Amino acid sequence: MRTCLAVVLAAGEGTRMKSRLPKVLHPIAHLPMIAHVLRAVAAGGADRIAVVIGPDHGPVADAVARHAPGATIHVQHERLGTAHAVLAAREALAAGCDDLLVVFGDTPFVSPATIARVRAPLGEGAAIVVGGMVPDDPTGYGRLIVEEGQLVAIREHKDASEAERAIPLCNGGVMALRGALALDLLESVGNRNAQGEYYLTDAVAIANGRGLRVAAVEIAAAEVFGINTRAQLGAAERLYQDRRRADAMAEGATLLAPETVHFAHDTRLGRDVTIGQNVVFAPGVEVEDDVEIRAFCHIEGARIRSGALVGPFARLRPGADVGEGVHVGNFCEIKNAVLDAGVKVNHLTYIGDAHIGAGTNIGAGTITCNYDGVYKHHTEIGRNAFIGSNSALVAPVTIGDGAYVASGSVITDDVEPDALALGRARQVVKPGWAAGRPKKGG
Amino acid sequence: MRTCLAVVLAAGEGTRMKSRLPKVLHPIAHLPMIAHVLRAVAAGGADRIAVVIGPDHGPVADAVARHAPGATIHVQHERLGTAHAVLAAREALAAGCDDLLVVFGDTPFVSPATIARVRAPLGEGAAIVVGGMVPDDPTGYGRLIVEEGQLVAIREHKDASEAERAIPLCNGGVMALRGALALDLLESVGNRNAQGEYYLTDAVAIANGRGLRVAAVEIAAAEVFGINTRAQLGAAERLYQDRRRADAMAEGATLLAPETVHFAHDTRLGRDVTIGQNVVFAPGVEVEDDVEIRAFCHIEGARIRSGALVGPFARLRPGADVGEGVHVGNFCEIKNAVLDAGVKVNHLTYIGDAHIGAGTNIGAGTITCNYDGVYKHHTEIGRNAFIGSNSALVAPVTIGDGAYVASGSVITDDVEPDALALGRARQVVKPGWAAGRPKKGG
Amino acid sequence: MRTCLAVVLAAGEGTRMKSRLPKVLHPIAHLPMIAHVLRAVAAGGADRIAVVIGPDHGPVADAVARHAPGATIHVQHERLGTAHAVLAAREALAAGCDDLLVVFGDTPFVSPATIARVRAPLGEGAAIVVGGMVPDDPTGYGRLIVEEGQLVAIREHKDASEAERAIPLCNGGVMALRGALALDLLESVGNRNAQGEYYLTDAVAIANGRGLRVAAVEIAAAEVFGINTRAQLGAAERLYQDRRRADAMAEGATLLAPETVHFAHDTRLGRDVTIGQNVVFAPGVEVEDDVEIRAFCHIEGARIRSGALVGPFARLRPGADVGEGVHVGNFCEIKNAVLDAGVKVNHLTYIGDAHIGAGTNIGAGTITCNYDGVYKHHTEIGRNAFIGSNSALVAPVTIGDGAYVASGSVITDDVEPDALALGRARQVVKPGWAAGRPKKGG
Repeated sequence: MRTCLAVVLAAGEGTRMKSRLPKVLHPIAHLPMIAHVLRAVAAGGADRIAVVIGPDHGPVADAVARHAPGATIHVQHERLGTAHAVLAAREALAAGCDDLLVVFGDTPFVSPATIARVRAPLGEGAAIVVGGMVPDDPTGYGRLIVEEGQLVAIREHKDASEAERAIPLCNGGVMALRGALALDLLESVGNRNAQGEYYLTDAVAIANGRGLRVAAVEIAAAEVFGINTRAQLGAAERLYQDRRRADAMAEGATLLAPETVHFAHDTRLGRDVTIGQNVVFAPGVEVEDDVEIRAFCHIEGARIRSGALVGPFARLRPGADVGEGVHVGNFCEIKNAVLDAGVKVNHLTYIGDAHIGAGTNIGAGTITCNYDGVYKHHTEIGRNAFIGSNSALVAPVTIGDGAYVASGSVITDDVEPDALALGRARQVVKPGWAAGRPKKGG
Repeated sequence: MRTCLAVVLAAGEGTRMKSRLPKVLHPIAHLPMIAHVLRAVAAGGADRIAVVIGPDHGPVADAVARHAPGATIHVQHERLGTAHAVLAAREALAAGCDDLLVVFGDTPFVSPATIARVRAPLGEGAAIVVGGMVPDDPTGYGRLIVEEGQLVAIREHKDASEAERAIPLCNGGVMALRGALALDLLESVGNRNAQGEYYLTDAVAIANGRGLRVAAVEIAAAEVFGINTRAQLGAAERLYQDRRRADAMAEGATLLAPETVHFAHDTRLGRDVTIGQNVVFAPGVEVEDDVEIRAFCHIEGARIRSGALVGPFARLRPGADVGEGVHVGNFCEIKNAVLDAGVKVNHLTYIGDAHIGAGTNIGAGTITCNYDGVYKHHTEIGRNAFIGSNSALVAPVTIGDGAYVASGSVITDDVEPDALALGRARQVVKPGWAAGRPKKGG
Repeated sequence: MRTCLAVVLAAGEGTRMKSRLPKVLHPIAHLPMIAHVLRAVAAGGADRIAVVIGPDHGPVADAVARHAPGATIHVQHERLGTAHAVLAAREALAAGCDDLLVVFGDTPFVSPATIARVRAPLGEGAAIVVGGMVPDDPTGYGRLIVEEGQLVAIREHKDASEAERAIPLCNGGVMALRGALALDLLESVGNRNAQGEYYLTDAVAIANGRGLRVAAVEIAAAEVFGINTRAQLGAAERLYQDRRRADAMAEGATLLAPETVHFAHDTRLGRDVTIGQNVVFAPGVEVEDDVEIRAFCHIEGARIRSGALVGPFARLRPGADVGEGVHVGNFCEIKNAVLDAGVKVNHLTYIGDAHIGAGTNIGAGTITCNYDGVYKHHTEIGRNAFIGSNSALVAPVTIGDGAYVASGSVITDDVEPDALALGRARQVVKPGWAAGRPKKGG
């Protein structure tokens, strides 16, 4: 097994995003794009990761720490080109590795398999490997000049001859270098060019000059789709979603209108799950077999167990554990609550910080009053209880198995099992009162 | 009028769907795909229908009984090819018919007009007619070899010569046979092929060998789009929806964002209906003229009368009868309830099992408490009544014409006309109490 | 500065729309299509606008009065062709102008820049200028025959030779005429043709006959996309939305799923605004910097200040002023209400006709009872107050700074600052009562 250091270049300013958020932190499917890259390089065999960030990029360092705890952070204080950026991680390079992999932090679709394929020629003697792509429109990209299997040069578009511009294979921005040579090659890169910058791609010519083997490996253009604008971010999100939708259907989920279902990067779906129109999954959702999620649901941090029926118009928030065969209906919100098997919460209800026992029915308009303005409190409801409509359950409160809360009650004290609890005023009627009122528009 | 027996082949396992639900029961626009086929063959002139199902396909038989009550069910115990499948319906064939039509249960878009066109040459002396399509990519399909108007053979792709593969016309899977010859032709089909199966398409060569006339009729590829995966199911749904959206607009409905409106197979819309973004119609909906349905509505089994305004964020469930000029607003659910003309139900309300008289106003947060944990009960509200906000109406209960329910009331007893009803506690105030509480974060 | 009279032709019947609403009043992004045209001609330099309407088009006159108050209205009593239609505005023409611009009221995408470009040759001596477009399919359009810079004729498709049909440049329906000549040229147009109509395009041949200079200016076909059916209306809406989405992203907004966000014509977005899936903006919305609008929101006539968090499933209605850092959560409706900084309205709440002071928390299920069946009343809530869940605040009512309303209360009287207010019944329990009830299904 060859050791591999991955250097992720994430120091770009991303000004075209017009955002205070550093570019590589903009999310795809709720995961920062750099986290997609970090996962790919780790899965592609990198045992060490070094991330090069800009001088003002504390939030990027934080995200790296969260998504790739072992990675080292290196600040590129001046933005003097890609070779200069890699050398910002000199300390990491100095520790040595078999393979040095260089990828960009704004290409979230690069796959582990591609990374492995780009590294492979290093094991067969290559000093440098460049991932080449065939874009629909190569204008602006550096062309890979390959002669008899040797990548002899990367020619910038503006410097390319007519014949060279006809070459479809372009620099895809993924590069691997033999670890033992990398530092020397990178330090040999000069900055005698119009921009006065140190270009990583110049290492190709230097290696050729030394008679080293330099290879090109073709990779899918879609994998190195770089994101520089919010429009490209939107397009990338769509690309990701279309792939996830296809995967979900291939695995046995029915999507009634696939183009309207939005997954998070970590959504898990069981078999024979049916998902209606306009359903949004935020992170942390697991859906078991035979669940039906109807239209207009927003689901985050929730587990939905077999046979449950959710929506339409339901919102599940983090900590919602929706048991087997449970029904959560329209205009209901469930947060940090365990609903045991067969519970029904069908209309206009807020359940927060609660446990509801199996078979219990929660009437329309029920509110768990879990917050007193300072602290959050727990509501415990037993099995086969019945909470009448429009009730307020003032936590902390416990309602026993089989208990019955009358409609419109405010429940402030615990209710023992099998008891009836009422907390409402007696009705008073004033005959004829309404007849004397002014009339609408009258 | 020629008699016609349609044999619908629905015995396939559909393993690529990865579903316990038999493939032909997966829905398009809320109707099982086989039901689309059953409707088309009936409308295309079939006076008898025989459906061939797999040995484990009880639910398919149930669906057929529901959607085509007169159809006979025939079980194909072993899956030995399409001719073998048709012969599973031997009993139905034996009863005789002028035309035998054979269609697949997984091609939901076949139209009555196409079925009539495929049958037509039988009336002019043909023994067999094959519906041929021109797919975008013919790879994998059997080519129809037509010589001087005679369909001489159906050549499987793998057996086709280069020249034959250039033929664009492919087997579309719809076939008609002269009833008097059909049984004999089918029984002549052998299984001497690599798979050891009996292929219906072999009847073409047999008929040619007997000097019978065999015709090909071109049909639209989109009509015989077969569904084998959930991705194809999703694509079929989209195709269906796009067609329905175009039809709705052509008939005089405005769809503010057509691509976000989802119809059921039986949705009926009047003229000058406006439908906002993200509206889902489940089955059984009729919308009269001049109705506006705003964004984010889910409507099923409901009638919406002229001039009504529904949504945004409204859910109408089966039995909702929304009268002329009625307003149903955000986060409202109406189930099994008749709302007479001019009723307003504008905010955060559940109306279930109720009748509301003309001109009545239902305040925000009103709940009809229609379920007592065992039975459902009815709520009757008169004309020009006013139900104050956040009230609970505990059914069974009647509120008279012109009556007034004070906000926040729980109404458990009937209210006579023109009366004021209150069911709420008197307000108590403890001055300074809140000043002494701990503060948030404090 | 040349004076310019714009004549907007809006007398067409629009029968293909199948609508009682006159065609030019059908909206794009919530603005009648004629209003888009009126804005464009005004921004393109027209100092006077004359709109020609049909005899039954009172609502069009009303819309013109609203969107272009200074415009004059002219009724074309009989529909005898485009030249006849322009002459219906004879009174406006008689007042004189340097440039006469003629545009159609059903081409909402014409831009001010295009109008200025079409007018420009008039300033250089042209008598007539015709805007020419290159449509994807020119079938049916009149071809512009240009010889040495002179537009010599507009040849109708049916009258065109094979060679003329090969001309890609077609009549785009935007025309400018030298004001001093316009009336004479228009009156010279005859009706000796199959339809017996007076065609504006005939003015080109007449001007050529008089040796006047006639120019063609190419304009984008997308700008003169005319709308004759609801399907075209739907396509136009989509075109408009796609452009607005791209603009919003270019200006620094993140759209998680751009294709699901629907803007009104006047939506204003700050920087680093994030908009989730399925968000609908109706007119009159301003969103400041750093706001997050989550999925499934419907927003109209609202201001959302910096750092606010709205949704999912929130509805903001006209007059909602959502302050800095305010949270408006799921199934909440805000109408005509000012929420000062830091207010939280998170669940199942209706706030209407209210002012809520900074830092106040509104519990789940709270309803402001603002309507008594006849009048609307105001609710005033102070700073740092706490409204317990499921409370009803019966307006008019004032709740002081720091006051605390207990959950489930009905508040009918003012609450002084720092006081605790309760308006709920004491809880009563009947032990064992529920054990004796019949069981579900029992």
